[in-house]
Amino acid sequence: MPTITIDSTSHTQMINIDRAIENLIPKGFTSGVCHLFTLHTTSGLTVNENGDPNVVSDMNIFMKDLIPWINDKYEHSEGNTAAHLKSTIYGPSLTIPIENGRLTLGTWQSVYFCEFDVPRNSRKIIVKFITD
Amino acid sequence: MPTITIDSTSHTQMINIDRAIENLIPKGFTSGVCHLFTLHTTSGLTVNENGDPNVVSDMNIFMKDLIPWINDKYEHSEGNTAAHLKSTIYGPSLTIPIENGRLTLGTWQSVYFCEFDVPRNSRKIIVKFITD
Amino acid sequence: MPTITIDSTSHTQMINIDRAIENLIPKGFTSGVCHLFTLHTTSGLTVNENGDPNVVSDMNIFMKDLIPWINDKYEHSEGNTAAHLKSTIYGPSLTIPIENGRLTLGTWQSVYFCEFDVPRNSRKIIVKFITD
Repeated sequence: MPTITIDSTSHTQMINIDRAIENLIPKGFTSGVCHLFTLHTTSGLTVNENGDPNVVSDMNIFMKDLIPWINDKYEHSEGNTAAHLKSTIYGPSLTIPIENGRLTLGTWQSVYFCEFDVPRNSRKIIVKFITD
Repeated sequence: MPTITIDSTSHTQMINIDRAIENLIPKGFTSGVCHLFTLHTTSGLTVNENGDPNVVSDMNIFMKDLIPWINDKYEHSEGNTAAHLKSTIYGPSLTIPIENGRLTLGTWQSVYFCEFDVPRNSRKIIVKFITD
Repeated sequence: MPTITIDSTSHTQMINIDRAIENLIPKGFTSGVCHLFTLHTTSGLTVNENGDPNVVSDMNIFMKDLIPWINDKYEHSEGNTAAHLKSTIYGPSLTIPIENGRLTLGTWQSVYFCEFDVPRNSRKIIVKFITD
């Protein structure tokens, strides 16, 4: 099963995976879609700006304010409820069109794996390609 | 059309549907994806933790604070704008990989149907299987 | 590649695209799914109520309060970080089942293209149809 493996290096980090996905597109696969799925409940997948890196850092700062790490109401003993919330809000799966053997992304779009927990090794994203 | 039917029993409830999905995987279907789609505008679908039940209850409590049921600005006469907002934020559709005839989920992942409105009968989720 | 092109006319606008999608369903395509993907980082796709228009306007008003356009912490020079955040929260992709050559939507559901930035011309949504 085609899989992308990532070692995240900081808390709440968005990592560009465009190249990692394109490296997995099977030879001869021209037109269809690519389905991405993260295997973790404290990470997510999204598409957003690849130009100004302030977009990604603004997003991370805003989300930390919106969903604080510490909250007296959280009961989850591991203490990372905020990461679980962001995982669901960003979502665990994405579908991206493929044409001429390449991801069909807008000029400013890149695909991001989002780490919402502490840095972790061997985060895994499953990639499925389906022809149309 | 393969369909999962659910009677929700409380306001803002996350119901594990792993087993219900796996029961619908066609015999002989080995590798591909499963597309889920809820037919309602006050429910959603997500993937999150299946271990500590406090994760799900923390999420429900946090989301009730973030998107209050009562808000002087809401104009929708039915009074359930909060449920519509959560439906869009969690999302109506999910795509999950299948390998060896089983959902490919991480150790701590389960698929949840999320009721955001009052308890309702016959909530429906359409399930489509596509081979890769 | 089947594409829907939209000129948005106001800031934070939800535009019903049911008809535009159905016009693209290939002749003879009966059963499968439809994948939608927006090519922009300040727009999103969602499914929500098509009956009372107050649902959509309540959602837009609430989201403007939740994610303010002006925030002293934003560093992105273009000044539209709020639009990027909403794009990720609503999501760039959607998958909708098709049966008997028609979108399988609930009674109250419609598909919306969501403009989160200023009005813009030629917003593009790629549409892929895959048979099951």
